[in-house]
Amino acid sequence: MTDLSPVLDRADRNLDDSLDRLSRLVRIKSISTDPAYTADCRAAAEWLVATLADIGFDASIRDTAGHPMVVAHHAGATDDAPHVLFYGHYDVQPVDPIELWENDPFAPSVKDIGAGRKVITGRGTADDKGQLMTFVEACRAYKEVNGSLPLRVTILFEGEEESGSPSLKPFLEANAEELRASCALVCDTGMWDGDTPAIAAALRGLVGEEITISAADRDLHSGLFGGAAANPIHILTDILAGLRDETGRITLEGFYDGVEETPSNIKAGWESLGRSAENFLGDVGLSIPAGEKGRSVLELTWARPTCEVNGIWGGYTGEGFKTVIAAKASAKVSFRLVGQQDPAKIRESFRAYVRSRVPADCSVEFHEHGGSPAIQLSYDSPVLTKAKTALSDEWANPAVVIGMGGSIPIVGDFQKMLGMESLLVGFGLVDDRIHSPNEKYDLKSFHKGIRSWVRIIAALAAR
Amino acid sequence: MTDLSPVLDRADRNLDDSLDRLSRLVRIKSISTDPAYTADCRAAAEWLVATLADIGFDASIRDTAGHPMVVAHHAGATDDAPHVLFYGHYDVQPVDPIELWENDPFAPSVKDIGAGRKVITGRGTADDKGQLMTFVEACRAYKEVNGSLPLRVTILFEGEEESGSPSLKPFLEANAEELRASCALVCDTGMWDGDTPAIAAALRGLVGEEITISAADRDLHSGLFGGAAANPIHILTDILAGLRDETGRITLEGFYDGVEETPSNIKAGWESLGRSAENFLGDVGLSIPAGEKGRSVLELTWARPTCEVNGIWGGYTGEGFKTVIAAKASAKVSFRLVGQQDPAKIRESFRAYVRSRVPADCSVEFHEHGGSPAIQLSYDSPVLTKAKTALSDEWANPAVVIGMGGSIPIVGDFQKMLGMESLLVGFGLVDDRIHSPNEKYDLKSFHKGIRSWVRIIAALAAR
Repeated sequence: MTDLSPVLDRADRNLDDSLDRLSRLVRIKSISTDPAYTADCRAAAEWLVATLADIGFDASIRDTAGHPMVVAHHAGATDDAPHVLFYGHYDVQPVDPIELWENDPFAPSVKDIGAGRKVITGRGTADDKGQLMTFVEACRAYKEVNGSLPLRVTILFEGEEESGSPSLKPFLEANAEELRASCALVCDTGMWDGDTPAIAAALRGLVGEEITISAADRDLHSGLFGGAAANPIHILTDILAGLRDETGRITLEGFYDGVEETPSNIKAGWESLGRSAENFLGDVGLSIPAGEKGRSVLELTWARPTCEVNGIWGGYTGEGFKTVIAAKASAKVSFRLVGQQDPAKIRESFRAYVRSRVPADCSVEFHEHGGSPAIQLSYDSPVLTKAKTALSDEWANPAVVIGMGGSIPIVGDFQKMLGMESLLVGFGLVDDRIHSPNEKYDLKSFHKGIRSWVRIIAALAAR
Repeated sequence: MTDLSPVLDRADRNLDDSLDRLSRLVRIKSISTDPAYTADCRAAAEWLVATLADIGFDASIRDTAGHPMVVAHHAGATDDAPHVLFYGHYDVQPVDPIELWENDPFAPSVKDIGAGRKVITGRGTADDKGQLMTFVEACRAYKEVNGSLPLRVTILFEGEEESGSPSLKPFLEANAEELRASCALVCDTGMWDGDTPAIAAALRGLVGEEITISAADRDLHSGLFGGAAANPIHILTDILAGLRDETGRITLEGFYDGVEETPSNIKAGWESLGRSAENFLGDVGLSIPAGEKGRSVLELTWARPTCEVNGIWGGYTGEGFKTVIAAKASAKVSFRLVGQQDPAKIRESFRAYVRSRVPADCSVEFHEHGGSPAIQLSYDSPVLTKAKTALSDEWANPAVVIGMGGSIPIVGDFQKMLGMESLLVGFGLVDDRIHSPNEKYDLKSFHKGIRSWVRIIAALAAR
């Protein structure tokens, strides 16, 4: 295997410029879930096309019904070089509650947070702009040193990952030949800890639903009608409270169909990581595991399905008090899926449960917010084995193969539609506050992330 | 008893001008619950002082810690004329959801709504600006015809009725001598129907509470933490759902202490009014009584205590979807009280119940939004008897003595602090949409309301 040190050294020398490029990308307000930022999403895509072209990629904007895709191609050093597809997303989560941000979420700045840690702050620094840039900057270092890449590389950046990826399936279908590769590299996951890289092999799926309960045809005075008129907030809270029993299990009919107990050897491996409820939850100011009783926090977040209410609203929520009975009340509800749980069946079971609890003179509307099954990747593929070694060479501790609580629907789509397995490698940390105010990305994650991709690219190119 | 027809005729001839004066008052955005409208509240008070001075009242603005009071005095025609205190409030409810208003809530307009009904639209037309103006315009007609009033009249208008009247008790205490009269006239209630005036003798009390549940010290990604971290929306919905049992009874310990069954003869009278669940709830698009099972809608709204969630919010409530576990979730909750229920004890019982259901690693904050006991006025006082006759003379049907679902704390304060009973006469209709979009007041309520006060003033002055 060729000597990597020149490429790694170049990545090191580039670091300040690499960070500057990341900052420019973070400044673009590419919030995909809010139509107000449609133009910013396109601006982010255009910036990426220009950046990839600058490294020698054949890069272009590809329009969709929603936010555009970025697709870029680069030949390998040899005609028989393996072909990989790298995936990331340039869109970011909304920033509310904005008042909790210490810095403008779209004015990234480098901060020293002590214990020798420096971070770059801003929405998307960790999810996923900082992560996708680790791969781009690894390719740049290769090009600058060797004038070529040892792999044939296709890059796909989407702009709708935070809003359910509505355009992705049609795009993969229409461009399957162009995008199919020997494997996909996905950089949207985290490290086990600051010194221990991780490869994710099990991902939870997701079902998102929004429900609105309607009662009277207008808001009512709670004095005139209270006690006699249906209150949609009561109906909604009763419905939501009924979703879980006292042991934390979800009560929906058939919810656990396709859920299997994690093999004891895998569970044993997770136990050995020594992640207690206290240190896992302690990071965010909690200490007592919620959800199903009698399971470890790793099992609860990696291998068990959940139901979470992600938002709720109804009635008067302003200052002071208003003695009103609202006409409507709404909630956003999501389910995390594992094993073989069927998103369509769970959505239908949820809707049937809700309908059965709405009084005859009230009504309910449902709005679908995406769905994807859980993913289980093989624990022993050559790609995973090579990546594990490459990561172990870069970091202080050997890489671990883990489960993941979050869902990355693209991995299932690559499997189903392009017949590719994915390698899930990322450098986020548990305190990155992704989806929350004050999101950040460690400079160490960014720097060693770039170096990690240099090593993985070399390992995947080696025979 | 003196011939009233000249005064009644003058009230009739004044009607267009009276309506114009009401419109000017409605245009003032006196929303007391939102600090953004503090200046508008003062402007409404100043407009009323000028209007009362114009009729010959000795009227003035009286500052408080909150929005100002308006106090005005007028001597009686004779030194021994009975002294009455008239009460109303110039503040109004917020207007949200503003998008549901067909007209600008602060640009009143007269509309023909069919069936020979004309109404004036706008926030506060019925609650309480239109109602308090019926009395002011009755006094104006008397002055214009007789140059005097047969009663000694003190007027008290407050500007905080829609936000719990925080300044009222201290003001009554500090000005007890000035405000004490033989009885209070309160115009903030409704008719039984469009042809049947009503005098309210039983009013429900109110306890308002706001609770905020806090879990993690930041918003969390539901993928990374879902299933292990406490979700404050789940805690909140479980708490709220647990407030009622399957029979609709409130589960708080001691909640029904002091609640007595309504005497069967009173209940029988209510039954005879023929108000079915279908026609009571049908007006607002509902048909099935909520709340306690096996009781009539009149009993549920007049004689039974309730618990209503008036507002709820937490997590992501914007467009699209955000897979977040919120750090906090909040609700505004109110209890309607009857009989001898103690507001302080019920607030404490509620807080104890909530605290007992908050996990040890989470917390709850309470914010008090006012409280008042229920009121039961004597069914046979001379004032009530005289007013009943006067109202029966004006309207097509005789006046009925009813209960009321809403609370008017001032009535309890007059009783406790000034030793006065109140006469509750008002001309609102069930479809006035008070506290809702498209609030209106019937011109018939306004016109015959003015004439009704002319008659009541005369009746109370008669020996």
